[in-house]
Amino acid sequence: MPTSSRPQTLLESMQLPIVQAPLSGGASTPGLIIATSRAGAFGILAAGYLTAERLREDIHGVRSSTAAPFGVNLFVPGKNSTETVGWQSYLERIRIEASAVGAEPGEPKWSDDDWQSKLEVVLSERPAVVSFTFGCPGQELITRLRKAGTEVWITVTEPDEAERAAAMGADALVVQGVEAGGHRASFLDQDSVGEVGLLALIRLVSKRVKLPLVAAGGICDGYAVAAVLVAGARAAQIGSAFLDTLEAGTSPPHRARLRGRGRTALTRAFSGKRARGIVNGFMERNSAEAPAAYPQVHYLTAPMRAAARARGEPDLINLWAGQAYELIDHGVPAGQVIARMAAELDDALGDASRRRHLRPMES
Amino acid sequence: MPTSSRPQTLLESMQLPIVQAPLSGGASTPGLIIATSRAGAFGILAAGYLTAERLREDIHGVRSSTAAPFGVNLFVPGKNSTETVGWQSYLERIRIEASAVGAEPGEPKWSDDDWQSKLEVVLSERPAVVSFTFGCPGQELITRLRKAGTEVWITVTEPDEAERAAAMGADALVVQGVEAGGHRASFLDQDSVGEVGLLALIRLVSKRVKLPLVAAGGICDGYAVAAVLVAGARAAQIGSAFLDTLEAGTSPPHRARLRGRGRTALTRAFSGKRARGIVNGFMERNSAEAPAAYPQVHYLTAPMRAAARARGEPDLINLWAGQAYELIDHGVPAGQVIARMAAELDDALGDASRRRHLRPMES
Repeated sequence: MPTSSRPQTLLESMQLPIVQAPLSGGASTPGLIIATSRAGAFGILAAGYLTAERLREDIHGVRSSTAAPFGVNLFVPGKNSTETVGWQSYLERIRIEASAVGAEPGEPKWSDDDWQSKLEVVLSERPAVVSFTFGCPGQELITRLRKAGTEVWITVTEPDEAERAAAMGADALVVQGVEAGGHRASFLDQDSVGEVGLLALIRLVSKRVKLPLVAAGGICDGYAVAAVLVAGARAAQIGSAFLDTLEAGTSPPHRARLRGRGRTALTRAFSGKRARGIVNGFMERNSAEAPAAYPQVHYLTAPMRAAARARGEPDLINLWAGQAYELIDHGVPAGQVIARMAAELDDALGDASRRRHLRPMES
Repeated sequence: MPTSSRPQTLLESMQLPIVQAPLSGGASTPGLIIATSRAGAFGILAAGYLTAERLREDIHGVRSSTAAPFGVNLFVPGKNSTETVGWQSYLERIRIEASAVGAEPGEPKWSDDDWQSKLEVVLSERPAVVSFTFGCPGQELITRLRKAGTEVWITVTEPDEAERAAAMGADALVVQGVEAGGHRASFLDQDSVGEVGLLALIRLVSKRVKLPLVAAGGICDGYAVAAVLVAGARAAQIGSAFLDTLEAGTSPPHRARLRGRGRTALTRAFSGKRARGIVNGFMERNSAEAPAAYPQVHYLTAPMRAAARARGEPDLINLWAGQAYELIDHGVPAGQVIARMAAELDDALGDASRRRHLRPMES
């Protein structure tokens, strides 16, 4: 793959092969996108859980501070389900858990997260990229976005999903390894679906489709960035490493736990969909019982989580983090994280080049 | 890490940074070790499930054909347990499953896999390396092996295990990512313990200990080998890619399923310890019920698996495979697999070097 002298896609023209992951649920802020853009990365605004109006404001907020291109991430809504088997009893569990922080369960409603209104926002605002999570949008929508000058990136967790996204006309794929913090982007939320390690996933997807890949999941330093580039990705999407930066909106108790060394695990306990976070008491007590009912469970636990954040109680909060969060920097500007990664990336690629020339074997 | 001009450990003097993984349970043969050694890789004989006498014969078998150094892999025995809660009912499930191939359940006995006798074999035969799986041997044993001129490699799946192995005096660590086929090497067989993606694991372990690392799990081509080297490993340990080679002892129905595309998953259903294999009917029916009782469940299902292999029935066989098995070569000599990987490795490292010099950013 020789580097083209004339950039054809956004991924080929990036200053650094680093994408700042959307961090839905509060950690993502316009200030974070502005900071990562200024440092040479490509930032992605998280639209998940925002209103369409707020999304537009955030887009304008970024544009008022930087001319750099950036992306917007949207959640593809699942089917509206009124199925209550299994999660009515879960409501009673949450009632007890929430009472510990003086909260009540929220209404376990289904929602499409304002899908149509947010689509109108991105179709009119035309960010450089729209990335999708939790499914593959239809061909018509993809075509409309591309005609509007917006690249369409689709997040996949299995080679079958990659083939479907490619067939639908995606410009690039974000391949999300099982290491990733936060929600699994899988098209289907089913145990053991889309739980592939990042390196294996890059290779499997590379064999099946020819689209440029953005590698996501457990990448917290420049050596890991170098590794995914060598494996065939065009860029690395970084999430956890920005969670404890000055510009992130991460809550203080979440930041406190990011400075520890606890194990992470996948759980449906907080939202009804598999997501990776640092193991805490709520996860241990409830993961085995949690139904696959997203976003109903998300809304059910929302008041409890908000109250726990306000009280600084990490035991009842979704402490999203990727498997390598132990490696992240704490309390520094996002630009400093990127500068460190860029230096490590150069070091790693230089070392690879030396190894190639020095090793005794001639193939 | 400049390459040393005088090799200090075996990993520094290897012709190729490729280790052929031990493949316990039949796939590993002296012929496979001979073939991979001749092609420039470092082979490891699987001692698991063999008698000590057979292990010695296999060591002599390899030595009669090649002067290349090689390793032996040993299972560290767990505690003898007569605990039967949970697995007596499992015995009845196996009785029904086994009847489909005209077999009876085996005796669900505990065993230390001939630990002491096998230790005597390796202490007297002095292979270049002894690698350990399922735990960390004591400091005294490690010292004895090292004094006998044998390097001690310990397989780890978490940074905490890596610290313990380093403190015990290991020469190198095999870091096994969750992608790996076959058994999890974790010191403790507990859900979500040691289920870290390979790339994240390399980085986490590299930060905590300074030992050379051999990366294992889902590495099925030279691009993935290059990636783990760039991430900081000294070599890649390859298992699945040798399963369908001419020299492997893999059964015909296992080979047949390796040529498909089915998903893999972790299961205790076959052995009582988490292991990754291609999902089949037996796994789907029994994974949720299987007790954590190794090796009792291994012996319980052994006659059923043997009968199913003899009948060519893949639905009742442990179809061990790593997550990237879709990328492997089929029906070729092991040396051809290694030659392909070596060429891809050079290609990948060369490309990395070009990327470094051509990318626009100056850090």
